[in-house]
Amino acid sequence: MKRARIAWQGGIHEARPHGADQLRLADGRIVGQAEVTWLPPVQPRTVFALGLNYADHAKELAFKAPEAPLVFLKGPNAFTGHRSFSRRPADATYMHYECELAVVIGKAGYRISKADAYDHVAGYTVANDYAIRDYLENWYRPNLRVKNRDACTPLGPWLVDRADVPDPMALRLTTRVNGVTTQQGTTADMIFDVPTLIEYLSSFMTLSPGDLILTGTPEGLADVKAGDVVDTEIEGIGCLTNTIVDDAGWFGAAGQGAHAQ
Amino acid sequence: MKRARIAWQGGIHEARPHGADQLRLADGRIVGQAEVTWLPPVQPRTVFALGLNYADHAKELAFKAPEAPLVFLKGPNAFTGHRSFSRRPADATYMHYECELAVVIGKAGYRISKADAYDHVAGYTVANDYAIRDYLENWYRPNLRVKNRDACTPLGPWLVDRADVPDPMALRLTTRVNGVTTQQGTTADMIFDVPTLIEYLSSFMTLSPGDLILTGTPEGLADVKAGDVVDTEIEGIGCLTNTIVDDAGWFGAAGQGAHAQ
Repeated sequence: MKRARIAWQGGIHEARPHGADQLRLADGRIVGQAEVTWLPPVQPRTVFALGLNYADHAKELAFKAPEAPLVFLKGPNAFTGHRSFSRRPADATYMHYECELAVVIGKAGYRISKADAYDHVAGYTVANDYAIRDYLENWYRPNLRVKNRDACTPLGPWLVDRADVPDPMALRLTTRVNGVTTQQGTTADMIFDVPTLIEYLSSFMTLSPGDLILTGTPEGLADVKAGDVVDTEIEGIGCLTNTIVDDAGWFGAAGQGAHAQ
Repeated sequence: MKRARIAWQGGIHEARPHGADQLRLADGRIVGQAEVTWLPPVQPRTVFALGLNYADHAKELAFKAPEAPLVFLKGPNAFTGHRSFSRRPADATYMHYECELAVVIGKAGYRISKADAYDHVAGYTVANDYAIRDYLENWYRPNLRVKNRDACTPLGPWLVDRADVPDPMALRLTTRVNGVTTQQGTTADMIFDVPTLIEYLSSFMTLSPGDLILTGTPEGLADVKAGDVVDTEIEGIGCLTNTIVDDAGWFGAAGQGAHAQ
């Protein structure tokens, strides 16, 4: 089953796909997919993101593949939904997308074995883990300016139940910029697969429902510019669409940037 | 004003100090400080932690002082309250405390200037940001095994209103292990002070109410063992007490570790 979380008519609703371009809300109403505000399909608790979890991507960044998972955390400001905007800051010289399988934890556990790992998974969604490459340093763990900007990580459109994804380790990933395919890969090429990541993380801390693991991205990154429409798609999970905007598009016509006052 | 958040008699309550060893709950009841379960005084949203923000501590770890703030995030599993236990895992060879001033954001903002920074602060509490030093690597940003174990970061006892802390940059920090002073310092020695940190973080992302900034720790770290009682105290903010336990003390008499089943 696929579920979205959307805002419409003053409320937040669970929604399911209805035909090609509509949604059926939990209250029975039918609404067009283009009429609603898509939210991340889960409200993330701890969000783990993997660095260099596809060997080809590590090579692309001129890093060697890691011997243990390289994990960093992301804060709640970073997330946004399907069909929303992400900002390319005026002072960035390189901003790239990252199509990633996002694993949603559904059952708490500590010291989960690989054999039991999938019992703790509620389902999957698509993440686009944009990076402002300017600030990337060579010690692997990207700093907050690279990976924790506001709305720099679209999630969605759907949470797809685990039962509907027979083999999450054999899914095709595709990114298209303005309709042109720029990134292709398969989850089969992960260095640390989903059961290994769950075993690793839960070896030293508790995983809890709502925790997300963004499992890394394969090679094929490219700079994106304001106006670009970026589709990150994972076979059987969904196609997540995002539009890049510049500072004027983000802050409004003045484009001078928000101030605290 | 000082406020705690405690659990008692089936509910979660806001509480204020009442005499030397009691609390007055928001509902008017008076209860002994030793009778309640202390929770972190705020429910943390994004938690930023500073690495090497006191030059003497950077020297102690044989790192050079950073040129920009070194910030990492902590997840919700890491936090616990006053008078609780933190675990020293059986396989750790070095675990040290870190007495830190924790700044609680009270008002959202983006691109906050240093001059306006304190307007965005709700108040302060004490953090003890334990580290499992075994996993510390030399590229500054500690990995999750060092800094994100369950209950590895006591917070509390009180949230102290900003108005009651005239100069947060001149507060004495003291850690005592079993009553013996092992760490002394002053917030005056921070490399990046509180207004600078708020300006820095909000220069690239929005700060929101409930966000916490753990501002780093001065020199004087020492290994702690099961049974140690660790007091981290900040002048005018409070004295946060924590007890170290081994795996048996943490998991229960069996001491064999929890399993997911």
